[in-house]
Amino acid sequence: MSQQRTELGKIGEFGLIDRLSKSVQIKNESTQKGIGDDAAVMQYGNRSTVVSTDLLVENIHFDLIYTPLKHLGYKAVAVNVSDIYAMNARPTQITVSLAISNRFSVEAIEELYKGIHAACEHYGVDLVGGDTTSSLRGLVISITAIGVADADKIVYRSGARAGDILCVTGDLGAAYLGLQVLEREKQVYLETPDMQPKLEEDDYIVGRLLKPEARKDIFEFFKKAEIVPTSMLDVSDGLSSDLIHLCRQSNVGALVEEAQVPIYEKTFQKALDFKFDPIICALHGGEDYELLFTISPRDIDKIRFQTEIKIIGEITPIKDGIQLHTKGGRMIPLVAQGWKHFQRDGDDD
Amino acid sequence: MSQQRTELGKIGEFGLIDRLSKSVQIKNESTQKGIGDDAAVMQYGNRSTVVSTDLLVENIHFDLIYTPLKHLGYKAVAVNVSDIYAMNARPTQITVSLAISNRFSVEAIEELYKGIHAACEHYGVDLVGGDTTSSLRGLVISITAIGVADADKIVYRSGARAGDILCVTGDLGAAYLGLQVLEREKQVYLETPDMQPKLEEDDYIVGRLLKPEARKDIFEFFKKAEIVPTSMLDVSDGLSSDLIHLCRQSNVGALVEEAQVPIYEKTFQKALDFKFDPIICALHGGEDYELLFTISPRDIDKIRFQTEIKIIGEITPIKDGIQLHTKGGRMIPLVAQGWKHFQRDGDDD
Repeated sequence: MSQQRTELGKIGEFGLIDRLSKSVQIKNESTQKGIGDDAAVMQYGNRSTVVSTDLLVENIHFDLIYTPLKHLGYKAVAVNVSDIYAMNARPTQITVSLAISNRFSVEAIEELYKGIHAACEHYGVDLVGGDTTSSLRGLVISITAIGVADADKIVYRSGARAGDILCVTGDLGAAYLGLQVLEREKQVYLETPDMQPKLEEDDYIVGRLLKPEARKDIFEFFKKAEIVPTSMLDVSDGLSSDLIHLCRQSNVGALVEEAQVPIYEKTFQKALDFKFDPIICALHGGEDYELLFTISPRDIDKIRFQTEIKIIGEITPIKDGIQLHTKGGRMIPLVAQGWKHFQRDGDDD
Repeated sequence: MSQQRTELGKIGEFGLIDRLSKSVQIKNESTQKGIGDDAAVMQYGNRSTVVSTDLLVENIHFDLIYTPLKHLGYKAVAVNVSDIYAMNARPTQITVSLAISNRFSVEAIEELYKGIHAACEHYGVDLVGGDTTSSLRGLVISITAIGVADADKIVYRSGARAGDILCVTGDLGAAYLGLQVLEREKQVYLETPDMQPKLEEDDYIVGRLLKPEARKDIFEFFKKAEIVPTSMLDVSDGLSSDLIHLCRQSNVGALVEEAQVPIYEKTFQKALDFKFDPIICALHGGEDYELLFTISPRDIDKIRFQTEIKIIGEITPIKDGIQLHTKGGRMIPLVAQGWKHFQRDGDDD
């Protein structure tokens, strides 16, 4: 083994993935798309199979102090299924692997599975396998989702062209604020365990974090409206980061209108309560699992009256970069902010 | 949540899987086979896609004190690919998800990937995706393997019929003894770190544990010889446990000839050194990743001169149970022994 030691933090997750995937060479004709999109694509005949996988680790991805196990199970499925929809494919099967410490009872694991089953029911997917094993401590959930699509309907991150319309579904920033609320309540709870948390007024934003839904409805709408987006991905890292992924892979720039970025009223208010700028939450918050996509301008009339789809800007030539047109009329470059940067910004506010 | 608390240890992994999979209902036409075999099977047209997934947790499935990371990467792929071969399918793609603590350097993870790439190369599979995330401590590896087969060539655990010939590939028990050797050396190392381990003479059995190979050659032989086994699975839990799986799912019994169970000379000798009965190691050892399968008697001539395939018995009616015909001429029922039981037996010897 090499004597060199590079800390993981130094190159980050994307740096690591870049480094590790450099040496990957495709050997099978059926491999249409490997690493680098929401899901891998395998093609047999004129049908494509898409596969996506996620690993969720206790105290990294979820905190069982405020995450009910049933919700966790539901979310674990929803976030994977979201990757399949982000390919414009229909999710059909999932596998679920668990590493469980003896801290968990059988009933607790059944509770987790209730959520998994509920999500399978909602998204119409079959639970077809997995692996159950022990862990010394903590819970690890690994989910792989499989979906199908006609080969010519698969949507990659790389298909956006200058002039395309940039859209996002639903609203953004709520999941991030939901996390802030829960973290605050957790501190209160740890200090005074008898205190009941007051979460009723925050139902919406807390729900967005704990029980996100994948946009099955949008996938079905595309089919009905005969729209094939030119590019698409789901907003898991944050609008800003995910738009940068899309632009890099499509080799284009983008212009985002701040005034058009959808923020739900309660999210807006809660951001102000926390002394955050709401647009910062919407741009960098992540975990909303909305779909960010581009369509050809000729499809614009098909989406104009869809309340769940918002036009937030357009795709530009790469030389124009990725810009935010602020409400104040300024143009500022959009940059990817990880959680850490963002939290520091938040603290500074 | 229910107030009842059932300990996981009380019902075991298979009990848990039974309990959790009871409520699974198949919704998609393409789902041919869900939980309960080496891999799930999805069918599109006349081609089938098979999917298998495994979760490997540090200090549960591997001990980095004696497991080189490169070997670990290779093994993680090999054991998944083994499940695909056990369906008589050709592995084509894998996804690899990692949870990594900051104890690991980038170079260490690259070392792990060297093994993963080497296995991908050897088995002709494409690494098509995954998820890389942090863990608070320890390494978790989740691998999903995908394969293809003609729909009528898929082999399940459930197809064995009375009169079929029972076969196993390679030899058994070595991986278990490899583990004993490494555990012994680990103790020596922990007590006297300067001492170099003496492993040369145990190369074969230690290699069987650290760098198992999936039986690609047997899959290719079946194709060439035009054999479709009537049932098959890979020997991961141990011949005894895995034969019981096969018999339960096929609704049959089996008769195993002790004298025919293949044990490599070095394995036999090492078992005696440890004061274990070699046949016990071969029956209950596990982790050998050989293929256990049944063929129709009319195919017997096709395998008779294959040195890598050993006929170890036959399938009997279910009423006859699962029996071992010992070298001494006695008939004793084969029972599943978990590692714990086995180790206790070993101690008693």
